[in-house]
Amino acid sequence: MDDRVVEHADLLVDWSARIDAGDDVVLDVAEGAHDLAVATAAALGDRGANLVATYGSDEVTRAYLTASDGDFDPDPASELALYENADAVLSLGGGRNTAATADVPGDRRQAYRRAREKIREARLDTDWVSTVHPTRSLAQEAGMSYEAYRDFVYGAILRDWEALAEEMGRLKDVLDAGSEVRIEGPETDLTLSIAGRTAVNSAASVAYDSHNLPSGEVFTAPAGAEGTVTFDVPMTIHDRRVRDVRLTFAEGEVVDYAAAVGEDVIAEVLDTDAGARRLGELGVGMNRGIDRPTDSILFDEKMAGTVHLALGRAYDACLSADESGNESAVHVDLITDVSEDATVSVDGEIVQRDGLFRWESGFEG
Amino acid sequence: MDDRVVEHADLLVDWSARIDAGDDVVLDVAEGAHDLAVATAAALGDRGANLVATYGSDEVTRAYLTASDGDFDPDPASELALYENADAVLSLGGGRNTAATADVPGDRRQAYRRAREKIREARLDTDWVSTVHPTRSLAQEAGMSYEAYRDFVYGAILRDWEALAEEMGRLKDVLDAGSEVRIEGPETDLTLSIAGRTAVNSAASVAYDSHNLPSGEVFTAPAGAEGTVTFDVPMTIHDRRVRDVRLTFAEGEVVDYAAAVGEDVIAEVLDTDAGARRLGELGVGMNRGIDRPTDSILFDEKMAGTVHLALGRAYDACLSADESGNESAVHVDLITDVSEDATVSVDGEIVQRDGLFRWESGFEG
Repeated sequence: MDDRVVEHADLLVDWSARIDAGDDVVLDVAEGAHDLAVATAAALGDRGANLVATYGSDEVTRAYLTASDGDFDPDPASELALYENADAVLSLGGGRNTAATADVPGDRRQAYRRAREKIREARLDTDWVSTVHPTRSLAQEAGMSYEAYRDFVYGAILRDWEALAEEMGRLKDVLDAGSEVRIEGPETDLTLSIAGRTAVNSAASVAYDSHNLPSGEVFTAPAGAEGTVTFDVPMTIHDRRVRDVRLTFAEGEVVDYAAAVGEDVIAEVLDTDAGARRLGELGVGMNRGIDRPTDSILFDEKMAGTVHLALGRAYDACLSADESGNESAVHVDLITDVSEDATVSVDGEIVQRDGLFRWESGFEG
Repeated sequence: MDDRVVEHADLLVDWSARIDAGDDVVLDVAEGAHDLAVATAAALGDRGANLVATYGSDEVTRAYLTASDGDFDPDPASELALYENADAVLSLGGGRNTAATADVPGDRRQAYRRAREKIREARLDTDWVSTVHPTRSLAQEAGMSYEAYRDFVYGAILRDWEALAEEMGRLKDVLDAGSEVRIEGPETDLTLSIAGRTAVNSAASVAYDSHNLPSGEVFTAPAGAEGTVTFDVPMTIHDRRVRDVRLTFAEGEVVDYAAAVGEDVIAEVLDTDAGARRLGELGVGMNRGIDRPTDSILFDEKMAGTVHLALGRAYDACLSADESGNESAVHVDLITDVSEDATVSVDGEIVQRDGLFRWESGFEG
């Protein structure tokens, strides 16, 4: 087995999920994630944790949903009890076909999701972490050879997280103290108010309230937005490609939109509900192991030299106790490259120029 | 997908496990059983049952056990709750390497087993069924090509179970009414007392108290044994080959033994405890789809034209309420071919001659 699989498993168990002896751990294994499951099981055995492995197969899910009449029992007792009694859920993504569930009707999918609200909450109440094992299917989605894709994935995951957490802490301090963020770049000039909001230092560990491996972003919840932003990193939203989305905001709300590709998808998103026309998140990617978009939000939004904004739901962690953030059924991330001819400023002071931060060598702000 | 996989799944869900709408079903999927899992998920979705899939990977188990210090928490809450709340557990065997756990120390395996007694009981309290998806690894173990092995497996599984249950009912009636069974054949003349014992019609369905698919045997618990029996069907016991085991009984106990191959394994089994020197089961194989031994007890013991005896533990289902059967930590099946130059008699009347039953055409008993 590739040594990096073992390092990945150890990082997942120790840094990300903080597993202790006696913890009940559910290991959810996608069809292509077998090798990482084996390495993670060894780490769990070594740490004295308890293990139950579930089979997170897209093809099994598709078969079940497709054959069902769509009338699902709410929160089946057996699965609910599994998660209610678990201390941690480690989800090992990595399928064999990213389009495996493409022909499941949307309403079937939504009915299944609605019927499992308590199960979802019980999972989120654990020290859950989502990660991904590199598979040929994901390499294909990224347009990369398998070997190059594995190098890419481990480059993003096997980082010095302690050092990155420290660096991200600097940006968090700036954002927490600031009132206004301005993003300027080609076809972009957007001002966001963040007064009173708290940034999350997303350092790929439950100890940082961060549940993705890899992570490497600092995010907060903007209260207002004025101006225009162009998202030049291509993405897939609701299984359809979008490219060069441009949004114009006034008083926090989208008042104009356009896209070179997938404008109808953006229209659909904006029409979901009132909250879908407002921003729920401003995130700054700081993972330098991620050097290109691979059409996977788990990686793309953490890419160093990018900033992302999400239409829709805000995270509670960014709000004060007496505040309620933007609410919506959706949370759709859109990403803009700020690594060239671009600046990010807080309260009039440049924090990042052309992808380099104020505290990095070479920065002359 | 091979139509037979779909037929297998439907048979498993409807005939064997008797799944109803609303049942909570745990589907345990071995590494090589993916296709059967997909077909079974479709059947469960169609019947309106609830599904949670677990990953029954030998390699994951091996990694966990090997890395552990052997000090396992008793019955972890999360996994226990999963099974305590389940209505049925469908175990889909079919690995990629029958030797996948060969290097797990025996004491580690036993400690793990001992720590999970309540979990095991909770599983056995459900409508559980064990079946197997044909894999290349199992074909190799059977010494067969993959295509021939699949034909063999489906030949054993896709039967007219209702008709077989009816035929097996005839033998059950004879055994239930009888007091003494005599097996005569080459190097075999054994008499077993079965007075008061109840035979089980093992028709591959929980409705018949039968939890294997395939099944196809009638079994009871002998109280006494006198004489000699030779087991000429080769087997693997405790990972070692045995062949032509000969046992001699007096007053129900083994008083002499020999084997052409693996005599030391038999000695080990007999030395386990006092109950290991006595018989816990007499079974008559009646599945005509199984026409050869494949070194898998799930199939071999049901082979038509064979009789098997087990050293060790008896099944409660064969005993009256006030009776306790033979007790032992082991239950080791041994199989003898009765399809040539052999008879099985009950109370002096021949029931089976050269593999044909009294009620079959061609029998002249």
